Amino acid sequence: MPELFPVAGVELGTVSAGIKTPGRPDLVLLRLAPGTRCAGVFTRNAFRAAPVTVARDHLAACGGEPRFLLVNTGNANAGTGDIGIEDARRCVEAVARLADVAPATVLPFSTGVIGERLPVDTITAAVPAALDALDDRGWTQAAEGILTTDTRPKGASVRFDCQGVTYTVTGIAKGAGMIRPDMATMLAYIATDADVAPALLQSILVDAVNVSFNRITVDGDTSTNDACMLLATGAAGNATLGSLDDPLYEPLFSAVEALCVELATGLVRDGEGASKFVTVQVNGGRSEQECLDVAYTIAHSPLVKTALFASDPNWGRLLAAIGRAGLADLDVDRVALYLNEVLIAQEGCRAVSYTEEQGVAAMAPEDIVVRVELDRGDSSATVWTSDFSYDYVRINAEYRT
Amino acid sequence: MPELFPVAGVELGTVSAGIKTPGRPDLVLLRLAPGTRCAGVFTRNAFRAAPVTVARDHLAACGGEPRFLLVNTGNANAGTGDIGIEDARRCVEAVARLADVAPATVLPFSTGVIGERLPVDTITAAVPAALDALDDRGWTQAAEGILTTDTRPKGASVRFDCQGVTYTVTGIAKGAGMIRPDMATMLAYIATDADVAPALLQSILVDAVNVSFNRITVDGDTSTNDACMLLATGAAGNATLGSLDDPLYEPLFSAVEALCVELATGLVRDGEGASKFVTVQVNGGRSEQECLDVAYTIAHSPLVKTALFASDPNWGRLLAAIGRAGLADLDVDRVALYLNEVLIAQEGCRAVSYTEEQGVAAMAPEDIVVRVELDRGDSSATVWTSDFSYDYVRINAEYRT
Repeated sequence: MPELFPVAGVELGTVSAGIKTPGRPDLVLLRLAPGTRCAGVFTRNAFRAAPVTVARDHLAACGGEPRFLLVNTGNANAGTGDIGIEDARRCVEAVARLADVAPATVLPFSTGVIGERLPVDTITAAVPAALDALDDRGWTQAAEGILTTDTRPKGASVRFDCQGVTYTVTGIAKGAGMIRPDMATMLAYIATDADVAPALLQSILVDAVNVSFNRITVDGDTSTNDACMLLATGAAGNATLGSLDDPLYEPLFSAVEALCVELATGLVRDGEGASKFVTVQVNGGRSEQECLDVAYTIAHSPLVKTALFASDPNWGRLLAAIGRAGLADLDVDRVALYLNEVLIAQEGCRAVSYTEEQGVAAMAPEDIVVRVELDRGDSSATVWTSDFSYDYVRINAEYRT
Repeated sequence: MPELFPVAGVELGTVSAGIKTPGRPDLVLLRLAPGTRCAGVFTRNAFRAAPVTVARDHLAACGGEPRFLLVNTGNANAGTGDIGIEDARRCVEAVARLADVAPATVLPFSTGVIGERLPVDTITAAVPAALDALDDRGWTQAAEGILTTDTRPKGASVRFDCQGVTYTVTGIAKGAGMIRPDMATMLAYIATDADVAPALLQSILVDAVNVSFNRITVDGDTSTNDACMLLATGAAGNATLGSLDDPLYEPLFSAVEALCVELATGLVRDGEGASKFVTVQVNGGRSEQECLDVAYTIAHSPLVKTALFASDPNWGRLLAAIGRAGLADLDVDRVALYLNEVLIAQEGCRAVSYTEEQGVAAMAPEDIVVRVELDRGDSSATVWTSDFSYDYVRINAEYRT
């Protein structure tokens, strides 16, 4: 874990409420300075969890300026129906009462087992301790406190200067796939001390998420609880950033984007049973969408993923995946395939220059780049994924509801 | 394997050419009586194998009345470019020369390793023996001869009477998934002695395949070599069946459809590493397509498949899969989920009547029915799939190019 710089206006408190495993940090409270703006993106799964519904409603009701985010692990409060909504609200109300703020300024987030009732009393009993623990140096502990079965915390932090002001962007994330074994799942919290207008803050978040969290896949399963929040406290004292022409826009967006990519790829590296980190890069498509279609077909193919696990340069499986991605009029004779810069296949068959030794060497590292050149347009797309191992099956078969 | 009745007009010869493993049957020749009509459906993978291209071309060139089908295992002749086309043609020409027929009346089929050159000399050297072995009782041997890493042969046979004439439909198939480890893949040959007009024969095949071979998935990977052929010899002596109103249409279509379903589900039961046979049935959709979207999202979810392997009634994963299937305006409160007729979830959460004991009992058998009631329309769809086991990873990780 790199050093996580404090963001003025954000304090974090992490405690062990005892939701699932006694003594393990499982409740994180974020307190935001008044006026902090919050943008959010949430799961598109129709079976969204109760806290997602409540967090979205409250974010709108408080005008995009919440005062607290309450995150618990160990229980996703998903698949819990109306009672789940009530339970999420009761946790929120406990924070609101103790902190003397309106309930709509508190957003709840949950991750963990699906389908069990949230232990509301356990959570509310720990809220006073979480309030006591609030500290602007609390990011690292919070990164630990939001984990479920992740094997390591994920955090990133960057500082940059713009027109004489130093800005900070710090973020944490959890998740080891789009969905965890009975876990639900990806959560990320990113904060900056820049002052950013609400609409632009949301657009920065959406644009950054689209090339980071929305470009990773471990197993293709979208969680019921996914949420990514971007906070802007304004403590840096800049004039509100409200336009793409502002000199602050470009460095701020780049910082948020880079941070999202670092957190997102960190999730893939910690993917369930992952032994490889795979970048699938598709160039020369007629549109970004068709590049994504090819990239995701490769990234989701169990046959490709098991070959990656075996470090097997099994290019036939890669060609077969490209061929079934549904591209109209794909001329296979124009397609070229590279593994870590070794040309493997072209003109519909194995490259003349290719040797099995080259392929084996290319597949040996932990980091693998699969590059597909479609040679039919100017669009590109990149996604990141992991391999498919015995441990993937073990983790997902052994974990019981 | 059930008894496979001969179909008058079809003879099969199976020999060991020595393509990969010495002594193993690996070359099958089918001789068709003059006038036999042949319908075919082929892989939609853009990277189609050379024999698929040649077989499609020849089927058109011979007016849909081929005289020979030549099938080899051990080498898919896929990912072999122009030289692969030449190799397929050379095999075809050897048959044509020895049998004194036009090359366009011989259709080639290959299955096995991708990306290696077809051993043409090995195959052509064995053609005389295959011709000598031709026998109308050769179906069972042929079912063995077309296997790759399947663990058992798949065949089915049915007789029915219509207006005083007895008709036979017999078929064989190979494959243990949409694609095999380096293998490519699903082949099926079905024959009847009925006389059927070409257009109707093709429509019978397409309709039957759409509810059988096109409704199974082991890993979602479509092979480069898939082919399913329906042969009608006319030896039964009926007046040519050319209309849906003919009394023969309904019993013949039902026989072909039932046979295709039996062969297709046989492939799933022999799916790589399969320990479960899973029927995913989705009812109450607005269209068949949205029912299929839900069914395939469930059938392809690695999290659902590993839960099935563990006999774990992990309904949260099933709800999450339904929720991400992309249905517009899905009202999750109307969705009901059953495992082997046990009501598991409804109204967005666990059913009040449900107990963990019920779920464990429902998941214990080898055959599992996952039934989803969407309650928003009158359409239905069923797909069949298998689970995801350690053996799946082992088979696909250990098999080397």
